[in-house]
Amino acid sequence: MFSFKNDYSEGCHPRILEALSKANTDQQEGYGDDEYSNEARKLIMQQIQNTDAKIRFVSGGTQANAVVIAAALRPHESVISAESGHINIHEAGAIEATGHKIEFASTTDGKLSPALIEPLLVKAEDHHMVKPKLVYISNSTELGTVYRKAELETLSAFCRQNNLYLFCDGARLGAALTSPANDLTLADMASLCDVFYIGGTKNGALMGEAIVIMNDALKTDFEFHLKQRGALISKGRLIGIQFAEMFRDELFFEMAQHANKMAMKIAAALQQKGFRFVAEPESNQIFPILPNELIAKLEKHYGFYHWKKVDNNHTSIRLVTSWATDEKAVDEFVNML
Amino acid sequence: MFSFKNDYSEGCHPRILEALSKANTDQQEGYGDDEYSNEARKLIMQQIQNTDAKIRFVSGGTQANAVVIAAALRPHESVISAESGHINIHEAGAIEATGHKIEFASTTDGKLSPALIEPLLVKAEDHHMVKPKLVYISNSTELGTVYRKAELETLSAFCRQNNLYLFCDGARLGAALTSPANDLTLADMASLCDVFYIGGTKNGALMGEAIVIMNDALKTDFEFHLKQRGALISKGRLIGIQFAEMFRDELFFEMAQHANKMAMKIAAALQQKGFRFVAEPESNQIFPILPNELIAKLEKHYGFYHWKKVDNNHTSIRLVTSWATDEKAVDEFVNML
Amino acid sequence: MFSFKNDYSEGCHPRILEALSKANTDQQEGYGDDEYSNEARKLIMQQIQNTDAKIRFVSGGTQANAVVIAAALRPHESVISAESGHINIHEAGAIEATGHKIEFASTTDGKLSPALIEPLLVKAEDHHMVKPKLVYISNSTELGTVYRKAELETLSAFCRQNNLYLFCDGARLGAALTSPANDLTLADMASLCDVFYIGGTKNGALMGEAIVIMNDALKTDFEFHLKQRGALISKGRLIGIQFAEMFRDELFFEMAQHANKMAMKIAAALQQKGFRFVAEPESNQIFPILPNELIAKLEKHYGFYHWKKVDNNHTSIRLVTSWATDEKAVDEFVNML
Amino acid sequence: MFSFKNDYSEGCHPRILEALSKANTDQQEGYGDDEYSNEARKLIMQQIQNTDAKIRFVSGGTQANAVVIAAALRPHESVISAESGHINIHEAGAIEATGHKIEFASTTDGKLSPALIEPLLVKAEDHHMVKPKLVYISNSTELGTVYRKAELETLSAFCRQNNLYLFCDGARLGAALTSPANDLTLADMASLCDVFYIGGTKNGALMGEAIVIMNDALKTDFEFHLKQRGALISKGRLIGIQFAEMFRDELFFEMAQHANKMAMKIAAALQQKGFRFVAEPESNQIFPILPNELIAKLEKHYGFYHWKKVDNNHTSIRLVTSWATDEKAVDEFVNML
Repeated sequence: MFSFKNDYSEGCHPRILEALSKANTDQQEGYGDDEYSNEARKLIMQQIQNTDAKIRFVSGGTQANAVVIAAALRPHESVISAESGHINIHEAGAIEATGHKIEFASTTDGKLSPALIEPLLVKAEDHHMVKPKLVYISNSTELGTVYRKAELETLSAFCRQNNLYLFCDGARLGAALTSPANDLTLADMASLCDVFYIGGTKNGALMGEAIVIMNDALKTDFEFHLKQRGALISKGRLIGIQFAEMFRDELFFEMAQHANKMAMKIAAALQQKGFRFVAEPESNQIFPILPNELIAKLEKHYGFYHWKKVDNNHTSIRLVTSWATDEKAVDEFVNML
Repeated sequence: MFSFKNDYSEGCHPRILEALSKANTDQQEGYGDDEYSNEARKLIMQQIQNTDAKIRFVSGGTQANAVVIAAALRPHESVISAESGHINIHEAGAIEATGHKIEFASTTDGKLSPALIEPLLVKAEDHHMVKPKLVYISNSTELGTVYRKAELETLSAFCRQNNLYLFCDGARLGAALTSPANDLTLADMASLCDVFYIGGTKNGALMGEAIVIMNDALKTDFEFHLKQRGALISKGRLIGIQFAEMFRDELFFEMAQHANKMAMKIAAALQQKGFRFVAEPESNQIFPILPNELIAKLEKHYGFYHWKKVDNNHTSIRLVTSWATDEKAVDEFVNML
Repeated sequence: MFSFKNDYSEGCHPRILEALSKANTDQQEGYGDDEYSNEARKLIMQQIQNTDAKIRFVSGGTQANAVVIAAALRPHESVISAESGHINIHEAGAIEATGHKIEFASTTDGKLSPALIEPLLVKAEDHHMVKPKLVYISNSTELGTVYRKAELETLSAFCRQNNLYLFCDGARLGAALTSPANDLTLADMASLCDVFYIGGTKNGALMGEAIVIMNDALKTDFEFHLKQRGALISKGRLIGIQFAEMFRDELFFEMAQHANKMAMKIAAALQQKGFRFVAEPESNQIFPILPNELIAKLEKHYGFYHWKKVDNNHTSIRLVTSWATDEKAVDEFVNML
Repeated sequence: MFSFKNDYSEGCHPRILEALSKANTDQQEGYGDDEYSNEARKLIMQQIQNTDAKIRFVSGGTQANAVVIAAALRPHESVISAESGHINIHEAGAIEATGHKIEFASTTDGKLSPALIEPLLVKAEDHHMVKPKLVYISNSTELGTVYRKAELETLSAFCRQNNLYLFCDGARLGAALTSPANDLTLADMASLCDVFYIGGTKNGALMGEAIVIMNDALKTDFEFHLKQRGALISKGRLIGIQFAEMFRDELFFEMAQHANKMAMKIAAALQQKGFRFVAEPESNQIFPILPNELIAKLEKHYGFYHWKKVDNNHTSIRLVTSWATDEKAVDEFVNML
């Protein structure tokens, strides 16, 4: 049974294990002040072409989201998200647990735009309501779609005009930036967002996300927030070593590219057979709408999640590929369609 | 420069890296439902001789403390800790950030006892004050001391009489249970505490703590709390593999024993030279009081933290050894005294 | 300029001022343990025909909502509300500030029903999502509509089947229970809800709400929660005296009845002229849709809030009457239509 | 049985009831934007000789403390208090419920000083610890002592040097400023504190405290915080009318002066008989140490709280007088000594 359930079913890229082995017996400072974390920071700064960023590594995405948002907001300030946003649905109330309301807009493709955000700003008339202050997006989105540069530029300009922070959840930023539909670079992300993170866990690392803070207002005392939310890792070298390895050359992007290529192969086959999708297949998560009998047949050999009932005979499913997805498995899957 | 700063300066035991490599390409369920985490749970249950425990793995100690305490308490309930407790001093207000007051007792050896707790219960007379509900201890303590079985039995009985949960922070539980002064087993920990955790990060793992919940009242919905606090690790296999490896045989205890042996060697040398200690040296953290000139001399070759000024000529320092501490470095250090 | 802006524009019923004067120099216990609060509790228990209720008085509605909800829920549990619910829109994130997510259903008349709640329960599949635990309604609703007995019975039964608490915000419970459309009694409220409150501020008191807790699980330690949220009033007699006066005879209901009667008079005139309403006018808040020129004309003489733009020529407005609304002002308003 | 238990046993000064009656039928804006609240603000600004203050009225002291502190601090910042501080002991964890740690210094007279605060600043070395940001004092203190101008000037200068906000809980500020030991004015309070409040509840009002914010950084969005914590009173006129009445002439100070005079009369009699006190009697709360037999005798006729056991034969008690304390009761009490 081959699993297309998610992109964290396997361990990590062999080069990462090698890097961990090689560095293993060094004595290093704790809490992210080790040489490997410093090297990783330097490499990421080269990619974003900005040496003023504050970069800190944490162990997971929900944690990254909660720390960044709790650090950025005063108690009465709210977050604006897509209805489908991970923080709004799949984090068990992590943001609210830090005291903040999430306000959301419905969207068919998982992306936010000024037109979707504006009504939430208009509504917020006085101090009886929360005050919107941070816009949360993800790239790629929960539906696997990716932002175009023009879209992100428009959104970024809108946020700056309206005194809103723009925060991009990049749990799958690798897949986004290597999508065939993509025209953004890491440097664009850094110049357009106030803060974003680069996901390792879902792109071939054992674990770890790199939070990149661009806006000075969000840098102050950030380490206190990390510590307070349980996100300051004592053996920080574990994540530093991995990010240094991923950004020493093109490994980070190569892994994501492989994942996308595998997903696109499946998507192309599905499209050829005339199947529709919940959203345009653009990265390593695709959401085809299939007849229930076909789903039943596929489930005997492949693991994947049902997304939503479409009608009595059709259901959308989620297929996810990763850096480790074997092309042979993809080919066999395609043959079974 | 050899570091005695802490027990997380190095990577992990080579056997753990091997185990990670061996399991690396398997596809596994996420969020701790993988086969390795299941195996690790089974092995720990054998050690504690109880198959009803709920065992979940998280990435760090501050996180473990915050999740357990936030999950256990209603908003008006407080935690009782030693003044020196990690949650009270060194977690940047992580517990208060979940809404709970920490009340503390001063103690010279870092341990709590009924005599120290009782005044805090007497004081809590009505609903104008918080209601003490959970007693937080650590074993080993922040001063490297360890609980004796009789002490923990007394404390446990007292807590049960007074309707208080007993929670043991076991970031250094390995060092405690292999201390020459120790007469407790993991099974004792499980029968005397309502919940405790077994620290991996500070005892030879890359990262990870195993939370062991014994009291049924604390098991309900615990996974929700993990998720909400950013502690549910998607690639849970990373920690499962490590704990399985550490508890497959005696590796967990052997690593801790080595750390203790190295510390005891230094302690014996210091005692022989007539130096006193802040607290009895019992595990891998020791706190000798040394003349400032000797400290200055040692600092040229060894890394360690100053603990407290004792008088104009003396300061206490903290020396920490680990599973990876080279005995040669210890011998050289001793020779320099 | 006469104001139809709200039902807290005036002070209090003269009988309440008299009662305060008469009791003024007595020495009484603090924090709601005074004789007047005890009397008020007894009178309310007679009305609800249940002497097991726990009744506590607080100073305002937002406070009542936050204390009740924070006291009822564990951290990962959520509240279900109508989208228009006061807690969801007009409390500046007070509920989220206690750590809890509000999930909401869209509704045209401000009321919740099993059909609206069920999808939110179905969605909550596992511990990656919050766990719905409390249903929040208001009677009358934010749109002035009132629950029928059959509706509340159905809702109550549904909540009990699904292990959900039912909490009714009764800031305008007086207006609800004296609405021409009403067939509920205070005793019904008590038998169908787990907890509700009886609003004084918006029904002729100087200030104060009576929280009535029926479900034993919600009674435990409730005073701690009151104190922690700043809701335990030291000079509790202030509210006790007022509620005793309002429930000594029919004063509470008479004041509400007057408010409703005034609103119904306006509503009838509007209906006669063919104007439509956002929701059926059933209590002291009505929401007619008027031509913009008429609104402009009325605004020269009367204070009221614009509710929503309906089309380029029409806007809905909110008219609120109170225990103190002068019938002459109503008649003059009607004449101007 | 006459009660010396507290200063909120009676209702309010008759002039306040008259003022409420006189204003009762006016229609006014809600939420503190009424003419009476505006007048009260103007009168207080005259007293503090500063028209830039932001003044808002809330219903109680615990609420005032929680709103001010939650509004002032970012999540990782802590409050410094005297161990005996009301927020530290008698507010059921209200401050921690907003996410903040309270750090405290032991003090014999209830007052803080730079010497007591400094060790808490030194201790806070890095981001593993909370960051002290606000100093909380009360005047008069929990022990009835009052700050001298020189003390408050020193403390204020120290706070400004160390980038700490100074917040004074003035639940009994009237008693402090009319104490025989006092040399401070309301204007001094305003120039030396960043924020403070003027207590009405314990000085002859039915209820209400006036929060006075001097530091611009604390003014921003303060109304959002009020609303979020349930402290924005819809019928705000209730408190506006009272504060306007109290500050229209000297009523506020006259009431406090009477309370102090009554306490001083008792204190003088006790001192004459050679009894000692827990702290110097300086305002309307005094803490004599009495033989247990005398206490037993007094308790047959007077209500008061036991404070602390001193030795087997002696206990300290708390006697509180108020604006309403009858001098005859005081004389009879004194005669019984």
